[in-house]
Amino acid sequence: MKIRVLGAAAGGGFPQWNCNHPNSRRARQNDSAASQRTQSSIAVSGDGEDWFLFNASPDLRQQIKENDILHPKKDLRHSPIQGAVLTNADVDHVAGLLNLRESQPLRLYATQRVLDVLQANSIFNVLNPKFVSREAVVLDKAQELIKPDGSSMGIEVTPFAIPGKVALWLEDASKGDNFGSVEEDTIALEVEDIQSGARFYYMPACATMTEELAARIHGADMVFFDGTLWVDDEMIREGVGIKTGQRMGHMSVSGEKGTLARLAELEIKRKIFIHINTTNPILLDDSKERQIVEAAGWEVSFDGMQIDI
Amino acid sequence: MKIRVLGAAAGGGFPQWNCNHPNSRRARQNDSAASQRTQSSIAVSGDGEDWFLFNASPDLRQQIKENDILHPKKDLRHSPIQGAVLTNADVDHVAGLLNLRESQPLRLYATQRVLDVLQANSIFNVLNPKFVSREAVVLDKAQELIKPDGSSMGIEVTPFAIPGKVALWLEDASKGDNFGSVEEDTIALEVEDIQSGARFYYMPACATMTEELAARIHGADMVFFDGTLWVDDEMIREGVGIKTGQRMGHMSVSGEKGTLARLAELEIKRKIFIHINTTNPILLDDSKERQIVEAAGWEVSFDGMQIDI
Repeated sequence: MKIRVLGAAAGGGFPQWNCNHPNSRRARQNDSAASQRTQSSIAVSGDGEDWFLFNASPDLRQQIKENDILHPKKDLRHSPIQGAVLTNADVDHVAGLLNLRESQPLRLYATQRVLDVLQANSIFNVLNPKFVSREAVVLDKAQELIKPDGSSMGIEVTPFAIPGKVALWLEDASKGDNFGSVEEDTIALEVEDIQSGARFYYMPACATMTEELAARIHGADMVFFDGTLWVDDEMIREGVGIKTGQRMGHMSVSGEKGTLARLAELEIKRKIFIHINTTNPILLDDSKERQIVEAAGWEVSFDGMQIDI
Repeated sequence: MKIRVLGAAAGGGFPQWNCNHPNSRRARQNDSAASQRTQSSIAVSGDGEDWFLFNASPDLRQQIKENDILHPKKDLRHSPIQGAVLTNADVDHVAGLLNLRESQPLRLYATQRVLDVLQANSIFNVLNPKFVSREAVVLDKAQELIKPDGSSMGIEVTPFAIPGKVALWLEDASKGDNFGSVEEDTIALEVEDIQSGARFYYMPACATMTEELAARIHGADMVFFDGTLWVDDEMIREGVGIKTGQRMGHMSVSGEKGTLARLAELEIKRKIFIHINTTNPILLDDSKERQIVEAAGWEVSFDGMQIDI
């Protein structure tokens, strides 16, 4: 199974359009230790020819341009992109769908909850229903990814609910502390190559590491994990926001209940941070926080990162 | 008045993600005579510091990145972008709004018809109504562009209806030949610098040059005009589509009723093509069609083009 990181940054990307924080500034100045990153998404393939997107970031057109594996290869209209799997309805995970126009056959996979959101927003009708099918995934059920021509990708995904929060633009303050979030709002994906049995997890958002979740990912070949913030109140401390990580549905990398601590005891061959916010110092190659995560056996993903498992 | 072309291409950009037409292929291969172009949008400023977007293309994050006039200049969160004026609800004119998150004060101007479309699509709630106001423009009425802080941009826009078509994703086939299009669906903008009196027109989509429209733009300092197709049946001829330009709401550049012919007699100081489709040979610096439009006194816009009038 082949995985290409199309974008490694959290919503807004790195640099973020209206952010003048020193990190964003370094990225904007093309500082070689602060590589620019687009918004989080990966592409997955069994054979290296046909690919499925996991989430469709607002930067998708740029991501396609910069990754030749996704360029059209034959005929006048063609794309190696066979479809997309969505983990939630965040703008940075669905807006990219609007780039996939022009009557190209595709298959979208998402929970019924997310499909309902797309249905309620008629702008997504640019994905012509004649060519683009929408498939509801069922939690905790392995589902084979099928190409629009009916053949198999040779890849199976099992979506499962993880602690999280409904997309910001769907929050309902009248519904209490969790803003009306339900189980299907944030999912993670277990992804398996049917032939080789290689298996990884994709979790760009996770609010807490529960015992159940820890048991589930123990022994995995690889985990892509939520790397949004270094500390929970980072955006407040840095003066660029008013929300904590917990408020946004993200556990932080450091700290007693943080990702480094909670995943330290689990046997996982490769641990990779993705969905990293502009304020997180692990984005910087020369930060002490980068040293800390690398010393703990973690990798920090970057745009164009290629992985074979 | 300063104008920066952020994107010169039609919907899909140049190259288009799933297009393997020789033009797209040359652009993808970084052929120096086939410069890549993002989707159409311009930025306009009175003082060179604060800018208004005219349409918000899906490529907006990349466009901001590539144009330092739009980078944050002060404080931790800042943007020279004060707002946007929308000419219709095409995906390539509104999807970019989804990039303008993060509680940045902005003012959006559009017809009530387009505002209703944004309202009906809750995904645009990412533009927090606490910070982003939506202003209905009235056809044929000059309106001063106002910054979120209440001060004037020193620029006045007069929107007016031109022959066109409702956005593809809003077409209603039950409503006859024009798919339910109404007067407010496609507008052009007359833009005037209040102090200097300099004046230009922005018309990225126009289906026919009527006598009334010709009279209106006669004598202008500058016109940005719909450069979608060279000939009406170009997409069919080239085997990449099934629609004519007329079906899509665009008059073509060549031909008896084309733009070159219809605007030849009008006194306009600068005539510039924008919103140019991948199939249009005027995109190529070495095409005979480029020679023809240049000989006729036209310019072909490109990303980053800077104009002072």
